[in-house]
Amino acid sequence: MKAVVYRGARHLGIEEREPAAPGRGELGISVAYTGICGTDLHIYHGDMDSRVGAAAIIGHEMSGRIAALGEGVTGWSVGQPVTVLPTRWCGQCAACRRGNSHICHAMDFLGIDSPGAMQSVWNVPAELVLPLPEELPLDHGALVEPVAVAVHDVRRGAVASGDHVVVVGGGPIGVLIGTVAQGRGARVLLVEPDPTRRAVAGDIGIEAVDPAAIDVAAFVADRTDGAGADVAFEVSGAAAGVATAVEVLAVRGRLVMVAIHPRPREVNLHRFFWRELELLGARLYQRDDMAEAIRLVASGAIPARQLISRVDPPEAATAAFTALEGGGVMKVLLDWREGNR
Amino acid sequence: MKAVVYRGARHLGIEEREPAAPGRGELGISVAYTGICGTDLHIYHGDMDSRVGAAAIIGHEMSGRIAALGEGVTGWSVGQPVTVLPTRWCGQCAACRRGNSHICHAMDFLGIDSPGAMQSVWNVPAELVLPLPEELPLDHGALVEPVAVAVHDVRRGAVASGDHVVVVGGGPIGVLIGTVAQGRGARVLLVEPDPTRRAVAGDIGIEAVDPAAIDVAAFVADRTDGAGADVAFEVSGAAAGVATAVEVLAVRGRLVMVAIHPRPREVNLHRFFWRELELLGARLYQRDDMAEAIRLVASGAIPARQLISRVDPPEAATAAFTALEGGGVMKVLLDWREGNR
Repeated sequence: MKAVVYRGARHLGIEEREPAAPGRGELGISVAYTGICGTDLHIYHGDMDSRVGAAAIIGHEMSGRIAALGEGVTGWSVGQPVTVLPTRWCGQCAACRRGNSHICHAMDFLGIDSPGAMQSVWNVPAELVLPLPEELPLDHGALVEPVAVAVHDVRRGAVASGDHVVVVGGGPIGVLIGTVAQGRGARVLLVEPDPTRRAVAGDIGIEAVDPAAIDVAAFVADRTDGAGADVAFEVSGAAAGVATAVEVLAVRGRLVMVAIHPRPREVNLHRFFWRELELLGARLYQRDDMAEAIRLVASGAIPARQLISRVDPPEAATAAFTALEGGGVMKVLLDWREGNR
Repeated sequence: MKAVVYRGARHLGIEEREPAAPGRGELGISVAYTGICGTDLHIYHGDMDSRVGAAAIIGHEMSGRIAALGEGVTGWSVGQPVTVLPTRWCGQCAACRRGNSHICHAMDFLGIDSPGAMQSVWNVPAELVLPLPEELPLDHGALVEPVAVAVHDVRRGAVASGDHVVVVGGGPIGVLIGTVAQGRGARVLLVEPDPTRRAVAGDIGIEAVDPAAIDVAAFVADRTDGAGADVAFEVSGAAAGVATAVEVLAVRGRLVMVAIHPRPREVNLHRFFWRELELLGARLYQRDDMAEAIRLVASGAIPARQLISRVDPPEAATAAFTALEGGGVMKVLLDWREGNR
């Protein structure tokens, strides 16, 4: 079988490996599609070498079909379509004890801390496997994990029907947050400098503006009768994005911090005080978010077809990663099916 | 009658004025005590000249007795002890329409935007006057307003019994927050570099540590079985205080931003993401917070006697302001009673 292996910064290998049978309590999954996440790009750039070992198999966005059941596993059948919750928690740390196992202090993230989905057959603990509806196209199924991120983020922001929502950053997660928020009845404005990404957003019915062309805070104030937005999502990772997200908020507005800002950022704390704003960190997802994401993708609420910009074979993984970092694309998938037939 | 008048940076005047009768809908209050707030110090330093006019009467923490009823005012009797909710809201702006009139966009704050309490007789709209219990000493009654700030802050932080709470900054508001949080059953640690303030905190039963002497985050982690604090209050206004408040928090911990940070501060947003922390701005108080503050002061739950460091006559206002900015004191009051007898 094939596997995409991280060999060091900007160096992916496509290796032939001997498939292993699933261990006790595991399911063997014949992988259909894997998505390339922003985190996979960080790994590719060598920024996560402290967690990702040499020759590690990466990838955590995926869909596939059950290929084999390990010892002691029941309730599953070969051929069944599935996806994976790629987080293993310890159950004993302070985060787990507080009921927040999704941000376990000793998290084992599959595809980062242990072998991931970019291989023809992936053996995964059965309790992390989630069934997909039979009628769901498997390329769409590979979007469930990033949709779960968006579901979690929107839930953190407590977005309600009629809310004015501003999403700062129009990459895949930003667009998915916009879609999920619109599905809840919110009025969404996406802020994104890249014209290709704005066009994709427009195609799927999300209004997008260029922060270089307009005064976003004034635009939002005008549209909300002077009040400002109820919820803002910072998904850009840029300093200017943080400033915009703070500026647009109404009194008691909520800013959901989705992006990773490796270095401290200047934040207008006076405005937090003055308007009693809230900042809410949002990380990953909980099991319920995955279940909701499956429902949303299967129902057609997520415009999966428009969001998948290109699909490459595993042998073209380096080209796929390069396309993603070049911008101008949304989701890029690897198609593992041929090798599995 | 006497009045303390702001004449410009570092210049207070004690003026004789003709007392005016209360207007329609107003109550005339014979002022007993006024407290000097951090905001009054900001005014004294000339930092709020854009809001505070020349020859303005300042002050908004007070107690007194009804001296006269204006036309159309009923339900009050001369001699009744009272305090004042010093905020007038417009009822029409976006903040008021959202039910947050305490942070009205067109707020008229008595003692900043319009004449304040530092005068022998203060005429105030009757709807802003709150009765005090007859048995409450009036010097303690002057603490109701700052206690309401603390009540509001603790409510914003949703402090619950058993919570580990860290208060960064041991001035009057920090100590009051600690007291109110302890009253809710929280375990409170105060972080304060000034030894006099730590001693005051210790005297009223709040454990206080010196951030220059210990690693506060390690101390809190050790005490919470590695989890961190449930709630932190940033009351110091210092950059280091923000960093400490972020560092001490447990997964999903809440940071209540009480202090005014005029300039943007560097904030470790990665930790907000990683631990799903929350930042909550807290400003002023709502009417309910004043009612709760009166109850707390009257019940003896607030150690008013230990918190009042000195009481000066109005003529010594400059000395009182100077004492406050010199540190080493908690609440400083002006006693207006003699001139009213």
